Amino acid sequence: MRDHGGDPDRARQIYGEGDWLDLSTGINPVPYPVPTLPLHAWSDLPTSTDMAGLLYAARQAYQSKAAIVALAGAQAAIQLVPRLMATGHARVLGPTYNEHLAALVAHGWTVEQVSDPEDLAGADLATIVNPNNPDGRCYPPESLNALADQVGLLVVDESFADPEPAFSLAPSLGPENGNIVVLRSFGKFFGLAGIRLGFALAGREMAERIAQLAGPWAVSGPAIALGRMALADMDWQDRTRERLVADAARMDRAAHTAGWRQVGGTTLFRTYAAPDASRAQEHLAHAHIWTRIFPYSRHWIRLGHPGTEQGWDRLEAALTRECE
Amino acid sequence: MRDHGGDPDRARQIYGEGDWLDLSTGINPVPYPVPTLPLHAWSDLPTSTDMAGLLYAARQAYQSKAAIVALAGAQAAIQLVPRLMATGHARVLGPTYNEHLAALVAHGWTVEQVSDPEDLAGADLATIVNPNNPDGRCYPPESLNALADQVGLLVVDESFADPEPAFSLAPSLGPENGNIVVLRSFGKFFGLAGIRLGFALAGREMAERIAQLAGPWAVSGPAIALGRMALADMDWQDRTRERLVADAARMDRAAHTAGWRQVGGTTLFRTYAAPDASRAQEHLAHAHIWTRIFPYSRHWIRLGHPGTEQGWDRLEAALTRECE
Repeated sequence: MRDHGGDPDRARQIYGEGDWLDLSTGINPVPYPVPTLPLHAWSDLPTSTDMAGLLYAARQAYQSKAAIVALAGAQAAIQLVPRLMATGHARVLGPTYNEHLAALVAHGWTVEQVSDPEDLAGADLATIVNPNNPDGRCYPPESLNALADQVGLLVVDESFADPEPAFSLAPSLGPENGNIVVLRSFGKFFGLAGIRLGFALAGREMAERIAQLAGPWAVSGPAIALGRMALADMDWQDRTRERLVADAARMDRAAHTAGWRQVGGTTLFRTYAAPDASRAQEHLAHAHIWTRIFPYSRHWIRLGHPGTEQGWDRLEAALTRECE
Repeated sequence: MRDHGGDPDRARQIYGEGDWLDLSTGINPVPYPVPTLPLHAWSDLPTSTDMAGLLYAARQAYQSKAAIVALAGAQAAIQLVPRLMATGHARVLGPTYNEHLAALVAHGWTVEQVSDPEDLAGADLATIVNPNNPDGRCYPPESLNALADQVGLLVVDESFADPEPAFSLAPSLGPENGNIVVLRSFGKFFGLAGIRLGFALAGREMAERIAQLAGPWAVSGPAIALGRMALADMDWQDRTRERLVADAARMDRAAHTAGWRQVGGTTLFRTYAAPDASRAQEHLAHAHIWTRIFPYSRHWIRLGHPGTEQGWDRLEAALTRECE
């Protein structure tokens, strides 16, 4: 497993076993309720009818007329991106989620990380995480559509777009589009990262290429059944968006007591600047709270939300002690 | 979805809706019982500890000291194989499961299908499905190990090896092996094809390459939890092997009443020669029983087992009518 902050086993090895509160990811800790699934979701190969139902629900949820392909998580989509065209010169807007750059390099691309979106122009392949992880930088659809005219292929990773759909490129993407791929994560917003479900939205031709690279039965039956249910449940999605806004505000208040400055984030995770991020992470780890820090910043620390009132109490108490 | 016989939706479109008995796959119709899984299997990204537990159980079940990688089904492994080395000249022992050839061709390999295993010698990459689907041809470990010395990379697809582990190459494969990859399917024998779980066994270096191509979190949390349980349950595996032997004998008797000649198979599926396979498939389809026929044979028809006594009754009645 890679150094992504999502493997709390590492924290256990260093700081000991116990009742850990894992805030090292941006996964919603209040998952969509998992019902008993029909046996055929487990036992049978998914059929084309099952898949069509899932894709219909996804198209409604993402309000898109683009072609859409289901994949085993946004990560599976990131793994495919380097194979969508002949290798060349890619630029990634960063710092950001490191798997984009890693997947491109592993597949033989020359990759440059740029910090200004204008510097993406001219790339054979340009990647933007929107909103960005970890700083929450966000670009409106118009500016991304304009950028698409200046690059070979524009990849927009919308893994954290569900809380604020207004910034999504999906509604403006159509089946005739030639050079934009939008990646969506199911697991983060719906709190079901274990089932491995994500989507690529693109023009028809590009989507066919993605489906061919993914191969048949790339998504499990339980993921299809659950995804279909959850993506069609607009009430749950609305309620979750509202709760996340409240949780993000609560997190900001707690961080303020620790003396941390707000950097950005989404309502699924918050990134702050601490005087010394390593020290802050260590302090919280001694309270068995696991957070994420970044090799490129001495100050940034990122926190997802606790899922329970008891978790919030533990975090707020630890952050109060942090400033003492 | 491809023409693999596993999508009964196609049969419904042609022969109408109804209570279909799908015998078109070789998936065990009596699945390993699915318990209520812990929430974290759904909600959290799988940890390295979860994965280590699954791999330990797989290593015990397959009695192998080789390095082992979990993948989202044997199909996911087949998709990866063409990327394990520079494209060249591949040979596939056939006729066999068509995805091997399709995946190699799609990735730019020159592929030849040969019918004699001796003709595999000299290939950059040689693929054997062992036991073979659909005819059940089977080669002992010694002859495959000898063949490995005469090819660049030997890929042995053991998707149907669970009923007769004595023929598996896994126990003779070690971590120092350089040019053998053994593929295992979880879903077929355990009757849980929907969860998408399979394994690649290989030497350490090759396994690392496979893991890198698969990327992180290639297998879902529910698949890891269930796979670990089922692979460790040797009693269930022994009972299932015994039942499959009895079911295969029952199927052979039923096929005999229809006047079909036995071609081969494994205890998970049986392949017979009918006077006219298309006619036989159509006859059974009118009774809402779906089977598999093959574009390269006018006679061969393949049947998996019914999972219930009622299913057996329907099949036996239909096969008795077939010979009238």
